[in-house]
Amino acid sequence: MTPKIVRHIAELREEIAVFRRLNPENAQVGLVPTMGYLHEGHASLIRRSSQENGLTVLSIFVNPLQFGPTEDYDRYPRDEARDVAVAKAAGASIVFMPSVEEMYPEPNRTTVSVSGLTDRLCGASRPGHFDGVATVVSKLFHIVLPDHAYFGMKDAQQVAVVARMTRDLNLPIDIVPCPTVRESDGLAKSSRNVYLNPDERKQALVLSQSLAQVPGWLEDGMTEAELVVRIRGKIRSQPLANIEYVEVLTYPDLAPPVPDRPLSESKEPLLVALAVRFGKTRLIDNMLMFPAEVN
Amino acid sequence: MTPKIVRHIAELREEIAVFRRLNPENAQVGLVPTMGYLHEGHASLIRRSSQENGLTVLSIFVNPLQFGPTEDYDRYPRDEARDVAVAKAAGASIVFMPSVEEMYPEPNRTTVSVSGLTDRLCGASRPGHFDGVATVVSKLFHIVLPDHAYFGMKDAQQVAVVARMTRDLNLPIDIVPCPTVRESDGLAKSSRNVYLNPDERKQALVLSQSLAQVPGWLEDGMTEAELVVRIRGKIRSQPLANIEYVEVLTYPDLAPPVPDRPLSESKEPLLVALAVRFGKTRLIDNMLMFPAEVN
Repeated sequence: MTPKIVRHIAELREEIAVFRRLNPENAQVGLVPTMGYLHEGHASLIRRSSQENGLTVLSIFVNPLQFGPTEDYDRYPRDEARDVAVAKAAGASIVFMPSVEEMYPEPNRTTVSVSGLTDRLCGASRPGHFDGVATVVSKLFHIVLPDHAYFGMKDAQQVAVVARMTRDLNLPIDIVPCPTVRESDGLAKSSRNVYLNPDERKQALVLSQSLAQVPGWLEDGMTEAELVVRIRGKIRSQPLANIEYVEVLTYPDLAPPVPDRPLSESKEPLLVALAVRFGKTRLIDNMLMFPAEVN
Repeated sequence: MTPKIVRHIAELREEIAVFRRLNPENAQVGLVPTMGYLHEGHASLIRRSSQENGLTVLSIFVNPLQFGPTEDYDRYPRDEARDVAVAKAAGASIVFMPSVEEMYPEPNRTTVSVSGLTDRLCGASRPGHFDGVATVVSKLFHIVLPDHAYFGMKDAQQVAVVARMTRDLNLPIDIVPCPTVRESDGLAKSSRNVYLNPDERKQALVLSQSLAQVPGWLEDGMTEAELVVRIRGKIRSQPLANIEYVEVLTYPDLAPPVPDRPLSESKEPLLVALAVRFGKTRLIDNMLMFPAEVN
């Protein structure tokens, strides 16, 4: 069934209210918030939501608030027709595509910020980014009032921030983290992959390949400092790679692990997270480890 | 009917869900957020809500987040038994009285802030106060998901902040501002009035008496600067009065009016707002004017 295209908040609320009225017993609503230019990663979120909910709202909104002044807001890739086709194939009920004016009819004065989780990783190099994310996600949550909201773990920090915001603010919404989807050669799917030229595309494999070695390095008893050195060395073997960060943090609190102790002894899950530039294109990838379960 | 006392979020949500289920057609829910020690001002909000909604939740929570380190959080007056009696007389269905641990089970990391509206008036002398208000109100909104929420205009800046937050974040809640309730001699009702000794209580009348003269002074063609001088002079006639601020701002944007123009020519509503200390007790009062309608 072709999803209904909705561009206005009032119409979206009415659609959802009608659905809930017609399905009083089992009116579960799922939300998949995206910036569009959908790939298989997004499709996996939509499929999961449509399995678990009677109504799935896919939102597509390139949120200016979460882009810095020097970032790629204007050139962020957009393709409405293709997005609707992906949404249809994956089972979305409604595609919500508001304009910037619909989402921000007057200068936005209200900001939602999550402290502590946002000063490292992407938050360190993108000041204000996670305030923009938390603010627009809370707007979408209020507009849709979903029972479940689906986020990809490729943006693990975003998942941690949204989950913490949801808990701190008592939002009655279940945050569902979903696994990163990869190309057959291992590159994490990303809307920004289209920017890569063939050489960059080939060398970008070093992200997933480095992460694939992490479990073995942990078995060797590496500390955080040793692991970071090892990953950096591996990434630097690719001449086009410019490392922005390589970090190992506990998850979901994103705090530094106990120093000088083998990471394999960590009692908390560990996130190994990378951000690397190839030319103008910034790629991220990560791996979530559960050392306590490994050993 | 005695209101039901609820101390836990899960139980409150269940009570509200049951009410909505049993009243599918007309299940309007009203919320009156307070810090307790209820007076006639709060009672008027509860009465209005119980007229307009099938279920009225009165929340009583002295929110540590909105008190500064040198403020009166610890000595803020509390009286549960009396509050429940007031709530009952005014028609509340549920009194929600959570503990601090129930509202903040872990260190709060998420803050909602409204810029622009919060740097003047009480925001100037109480840094962080309105972040604390916006954050706890958004928590209460998420817990109750009311159709209407009732706030007293004595805290006009709070009403402006909450209304702006609600609009900016697309909260599907109608914010209802309600008139200030006064003692028979004109003093605005406040939980903090109990702190006043007899001399302070008598001199505190200067707040409402100054405001009562404002319409006449506006008819005389006064500018903002002239009006502020006149009010300050009047308040200073009381030896125990320590002025914190006397300000005239447009409402609800809380911006300075056009300078050197008679206020009576203002096209926007004007808020004349006062904060004055008597001993350790800080009192506020205000008057909202609609010059365009007056003339």
